[in-house]
Amino acid sequence: MAEPLLVRAARRGPVERTPVWFMRQAGRSLPEYRAIREKHAFFEVASTPELCAEVTLQPVRRHDVDAAVMFADIMTPVLGMGLDVRLVEGVGPVVDRPVRTMADVEALRVPDPEEAFAPVLEAVRLVRGALRPDQAVVGFCGGPFTVAGYLVEGRPSREFAVTKRLMLTEPAVWHALLARLADTFAAYVAAKARSGADVIQLFDSWVGALSPAHYRTYVAPYSARILAAVDVPTIHFGTGTATLLEEMAAAGGDVIGLDWRIPLDAGWDRVPDRAVQGNLDPAVLLAPWERIEAEALDVLARAAGRPGHIFNLGHGVLPSVDADTLTRLAALVRERSAAPVPA
Amino acid sequence: MAEPLLVRAARRGPVERTPVWFMRQAGRSLPEYRAIREKHAFFEVASTPELCAEVTLQPVRRHDVDAAVMFADIMTPVLGMGLDVRLVEGVGPVVDRPVRTMADVEALRVPDPEEAFAPVLEAVRLVRGALRPDQAVVGFCGGPFTVAGYLVEGRPSREFAVTKRLMLTEPAVWHALLARLADTFAAYVAAKARSGADVIQLFDSWVGALSPAHYRTYVAPYSARILAAVDVPTIHFGTGTATLLEEMAAAGGDVIGLDWRIPLDAGWDRVPDRAVQGNLDPAVLLAPWERIEAEALDVLARAAGRPGHIFNLGHGVLPSVDADTLTRLAALVRERSAAPVPA
Repeated sequence: MAEPLLVRAARRGPVERTPVWFMRQAGRSLPEYRAIREKHAFFEVASTPELCAEVTLQPVRRHDVDAAVMFADIMTPVLGMGLDVRLVEGVGPVVDRPVRTMADVEALRVPDPEEAFAPVLEAVRLVRGALRPDQAVVGFCGGPFTVAGYLVEGRPSREFAVTKRLMLTEPAVWHALLARLADTFAAYVAAKARSGADVIQLFDSWVGALSPAHYRTYVAPYSARILAAVDVPTIHFGTGTATLLEEMAAAGGDVIGLDWRIPLDAGWDRVPDRAVQGNLDPAVLLAPWERIEAEALDVLARAAGRPGHIFNLGHGVLPSVDADTLTRLAALVRERSAAPVPA
Repeated sequence: MAEPLLVRAARRGPVERTPVWFMRQAGRSLPEYRAIREKHAFFEVASTPELCAEVTLQPVRRHDVDAAVMFADIMTPVLGMGLDVRLVEGVGPVVDRPVRTMADVEALRVPDPEEAFAPVLEAVRLVRGALRPDQAVVGFCGGPFTVAGYLVEGRPSREFAVTKRLMLTEPAVWHALLARLADTFAAYVAAKARSGADVIQLFDSWVGALSPAHYRTYVAPYSARILAAVDVPTIHFGTGTATLLEEMAAAGGDVIGLDWRIPLDAGWDRVPDRAVQGNLDPAVLLAPWERIEAEALDVLARAAGRPGHIFNLGHGVLPSVDADTLTRLAALVRERSAAPVPA
């Protein structure tokens, strides 16, 4: 096959079985990743093409999944904008000088991606060269709300109170910030696609903190700008999005990512003209195998063989998950989703 | 009127205007509360009847809201079970010895509420005695998932990975824990109602982390047991519950609490045989007044004067909100929801 299975599913074309990969499959669930991280810091791995390609390929080799998702952090493109971001163990991304004024926003560069992200793009080329034609390279990019939230709060937040205050009291600053992020991210994903990424995923983890009306006004136009920057298929993902799915689909995405809070069939009914990705609760992978199998088969049953389902978790792999569980789950999806051979 | 406005609205009876109160109205948004906390620790205030009654009444005096919500923490009843809980500033409830085994569960007492919570019950009597007949005393109780999550994780969590692992891998331990919490909480709310609470709110803040299927199996029966323990009207509340509303209503609650992620009318359509409470985004109160007013009037417009709407935020008052904003908002709801005087 000349075209990756994931790409065909994203276009809702015919597939011989359901493609499967796992968000955050490259990372701490793998012993071979932890071995590399003993010697190299996170951003060192992410910015050294050979190391980045290696950790990106590790889960593909181990689990035989249908996509290699480029190892990166959602804050990676922000590093090119002139901001210092630290990844603090047990906390998440920390920005010591949060972005809260128009002057802060105007100090942000929109970098030339070929220059600022050269190692990332080289890693994409290395990964694409190492994969079979039926496997896909997925490049992801943080969603504008989630990244802006980190930049404005200065650290992870559950309430996003400072972020929303800025959004509602200084909309000009907010829109300027989001526009700058969108310009940077659009160039970043376009460069990734030129370098060989077959699919782009917009990963707006915490966008579910917003009401539909706030999402529409303050986020959707920027998500749309990023998603429109590439010709390859796109996946539009967030968590806690049960009330945002139609708005997210309107902003863009060939594929809408569903989390586990909405049954897959109910979620798909809300965006019937798109492919969907998901949606096993990542915490289910901590359960005994019989339970994992039953819940994975329930996801497949809800997809009911309709074209356009990409099997995934409803959010990233938890670091405490056993790597063998992921291998077994990928095999289960491959086997149980294959169309029966005609008699 | 012999009966509090809030009670009549909870029963979807006729009301002359929409009742209004704010979750977490007693607390850090008020200077008079902060003055008391300078001299007394949180649990000291909560367990001293006169102090507890005083901070409970402060927002009623200041904002002229229709309910006094008893000052407490959702972990208050847990203190009677033989567990040490610390409230850590900037973190939340911390349990140094998390509950993770059957032995841990069996070590939990189901206390006699009249004995273990005597100061809380005395505070309820003091507050009821201080209010007008048209004002309501609301007693709240943590929801079984949220409290169990704190007990199992040992601290606040976004993923609830340890909690869900216990739920799925050791269901007997999980069910034993939830049964013990339900027994304790049922006795706690029943005693509060006997002491004068007019309404009970079950406050399951983080239950939205669950899929509908997990909610139904692992939480709903225990929520139902607690809600069935009183004859007074009940409010059943959580956040991120857009996919759980029908399940929550099935478990119980005369009133279903809605967060801001779902437009009030859309949420109400999902539980048409109940009253609803909500649902202004608490972060909107950080915006300029014109914006607050517009969004509050939008909530009232979506309720459209149907009997059974209780105006509230979609979650608790943020500590950074200006107290005057709450006063003004309560007045706005009182004025703009009043039925026009017939000509």
